[in-house]
Amino acid sequence: MKNDKETVNLVVGKNILSANDRVAAENRAIFEEAGVFVANVMASPGAGKTSLILATIERLPPHIRPGVIEGDVASRIDADTIAARGVPVVQINTGGGCHLDAPMVRAALTDLPLDSINLLFIENVGNLICPASFDLGAHLAVVVPSVAEGHDKPYKYPGMFASASAVVLNKADLEEVFEFDHPFFRCGIEMVNPAVPFFVVSCRTGRGMDAWVAWLVAALQTAQKNR
Amino acid sequence: MKNDKETVNLVVGKNILSANDRVAAENRAIFEEAGVFVANVMASPGAGKTSLILATIERLPPHIRPGVIEGDVASRIDADTIAARGVPVVQINTGGGCHLDAPMVRAALTDLPLDSINLLFIENVGNLICPASFDLGAHLAVVVPSVAEGHDKPYKYPGMFASASAVVLNKADLEEVFEFDHPFFRCGIEMVNPAVPFFVVSCRTGRGMDAWVAWLVAALQTAQKNR
Repeated sequence: MKNDKETVNLVVGKNILSANDRVAAENRAIFEEAGVFVANVMASPGAGKTSLILATIERLPPHIRPGVIEGDVASRIDADTIAARGVPVVQINTGGGCHLDAPMVRAALTDLPLDSINLLFIENVGNLICPASFDLGAHLAVVVPSVAEGHDKPYKYPGMFASASAVVLNKADLEEVFEFDHPFFRCGIEMVNPAVPFFVVSCRTGRGMDAWVAWLVAALQTAQKNR
Repeated sequence: MKNDKETVNLVVGKNILSANDRVAAENRAIFEEAGVFVANVMASPGAGKTSLILATIERLPPHIRPGVIEGDVASRIDADTIAARGVPVVQINTGGGCHLDAPMVRAALTDLPLDSINLLFIENVGNLICPASFDLGAHLAVVVPSVAEGHDKPYKYPGMFASASAVVLNKADLEEVFEFDHPFFRCGIEMVNPAVPFFVVSCRTGRGMDAWVAWLVAALQTAQKNR
């Protein structure tokens, strides 16, 4: 029974992923053509993905024009929050699906003014496992753990941390409340992704945000120069 | 492309779920035969599943003899924590899988002393989406949100809250820090699961634990009487 199931999973998983990768490559070509730099923002439920996107947008220099795709199983709470700031946003509801995939992002692009933005945040479904397996065509994979989740997450969810282009640890203002062990956490990240840029922030207090935004803007500018 | 993918997902998903349900029914029969009451504990990463299990075990009356199955993508951090308390525990590592399934639980049972326990906690993989779709053969589905994740979770992850036999809101000692809106949260739960027993606890301070443990013990005793 178990072996049968695993075999089915493997074969179909491969087909789905290769189909996804084809659309992701097309998405990436669309983004390149439009001059839009794209960050896939991934985290557990409630780690602060939307808060990080908003706190980042507030600190962007004027020549960076952001847009957002919001991914959720259900509701448009986050999209409404983003839209209230006057930022172009499209909500995707997966209706039970545990991750965004490249075709969902493609469908959302028809409702985004790609010619008037140059930085797109794709906020993935809150899930520290599945989203890491699906290329969306983004340039960056930004993983956002929070101190409220505990310092053991890189050991328990290594695939997500291994996939990261940047790790942004949020809710750092509460590190004492949660007795957060920074060296243990860092050690876990170094085991799976030793060179990944790492930022410690609090979206609430603004701590650490300048360093993270400076790195993001530099990454965008480097990509623009290389076009 | 998108339609092809959805069709493949549907057909295989149905086969996997029906195969899973068969093994779940067998697991349930094994538990009934052994007189073991089983709770499937589900939550986001870092919501406090292990903390709740430990804080519950500490408060159980002497005639309740607990055991634990720990599910994680990787590591045996939680199993070691449980074992240090002298509680029988088996670790399942899914190796990337985003949920436990019934065959995984069946395999773990061979390493559990079912004849010397009467309450089994199955701590699922940290994920607020996929675990709700896989019956493990448990009697209860215990969903553990935390105030640190925010009050919008029932709206964003309705499937998980709809599947719950009990909702245990953890980290309640931090409700002011996180400006947690209890009425909004409760309203979200009532939309998808109006009659579900609801407990507000802090595993750290012990707040609310007595009411939750009393309910759990009563549920176990009712099940034993009905055998």
